[in-house]
Amino acid sequence: MASNNRNISRDYPPEPTLHRLPWYLAYVSMLRHRNVEYVSSTSIARELNVDASQIAKDLSVLDIKGKTRIGYEVVALENALRNFLGFATGHNAVILGAGSLGSALMADTGLERFGLNIVAGFDISSEMINREIKGIPVYHIDSLADMQTRLKAEIAIITVPVEQAQIVADLAMEAGIPALWNFTPSRVLTAPGTVIQNTSIYSHLAVMYNRLSLLRNEDRID
Amino acid sequence: MASNNRNISRDYPPEPTLHRLPWYLAYVSMLRHRNVEYVSSTSIARELNVDASQIAKDLSVLDIKGKTRIGYEVVALENALRNFLGFATGHNAVILGAGSLGSALMADTGLERFGLNIVAGFDISSEMINREIKGIPVYHIDSLADMQTRLKAEIAIITVPVEQAQIVADLAMEAGIPALWNFTPSRVLTAPGTVIQNTSIYSHLAVMYNRLSLLRNEDRID
Repeated sequence: MASNNRNISRDYPPEPTLHRLPWYLAYVSMLRHRNVEYVSSTSIARELNVDASQIAKDLSVLDIKGKTRIGYEVVALENALRNFLGFATGHNAVILGAGSLGSALMADTGLERFGLNIVAGFDISSEMINREIKGIPVYHIDSLADMQTRLKAEIAIITVPVEQAQIVADLAMEAGIPALWNFTPSRVLTAPGTVIQNTSIYSHLAVMYNRLSLLRNEDRID
Repeated sequence: MASNNRNISRDYPPEPTLHRLPWYLAYVSMLRHRNVEYVSSTSIARELNVDASQIAKDLSVLDIKGKTRIGYEVVALENALRNFLGFATGHNAVILGAGSLGSALMADTGLERFGLNIVAGFDISSEMINREIKGIPVYHIDSLADMQTRLKAEIAIITVPVEQAQIVADLAMEAGIPALWNFTPSRVLTAPGTVIQNTSIYSHLAVMYNRLSLLRNEDRID
């Protein structure tokens, strides 16, 4: 992707594109496992139920060209996607709140394959501090700024109880951590220039519960 | 929320509303902890940086009215939100894929407070089967349909490796599980009437990595 002639539109794909690219990566990884050599955007489109022209447009952010009638080389496309998405590079991250969900993420070794290295956890509970979770040390949250000079975390993963979310977000920003990944159901306000993503697992639950209740009501009417 | 005069627009709030309601719940829960008695949509708006008219519109899906100049009663609003979002009711769920992420979710006791009861896990690995994770049994995936008659799971949580996602999704739908919660980076195709939510933690990582690389490039230019 490094290029001297970079332009803004290439370096700034919109979020919906960045959300679809991992689908394509998952699909072409599967094809590689099956030793498939080439794949066209029309066959990706058929498999994933996404418009083929949308796929061609999404893939145009990559430094890779498909061949007419043959399509993309599977191995090259997989590598280009992994590199572009940042999954091939290690990114240091810290967990803020080593409770139930925080510990779970520290124990989830699958995240490493997507370039996420959780290097430390932080908490206020004396039960958690100075322990290790799957080999990852947990420190007192008060030492975050000090530790950050050594840890150089790019991402602070926020898994504290909801009423602490903004407090630890502020601590992370003060410590100079440039990105926040908020797993709490709370809205977190950020300083300009801070990267934030909200993984609102509880709001996904809310949508499912609501749609399930609609299904039950339909059944009752039928 | 039960009402004889139900109408579609009340029973079918759009997803963005269902995504914002948990923010309001998190905020009013915090106010209750602080023994605050009333809250107005303008003060929620200020705290959460959401437009006040949007908040009033979102809250209109609830069977609760604010008082002019005083606002909503905090305890009543918290209860109305919890009930409406389905967090106050237990919903049975099964984990399909008791690997790293699946085990982590089974160990995350925090989900129970949002109405999610994970009653069983399913896997194909003989190392996992007939074990328990935090007291939750793990069975062979082949027994899913049989077990479902007893478990009555409403939600199948998909945490298998990406190439297995569609296969277990199909098994879940065949077993009559009405909702799928897909944690894999793969797109999952569903039968009409099936509820699906994708929690694409990897695509959130991709967005953060990309935005971080843009920040670094800006720094280089400055």
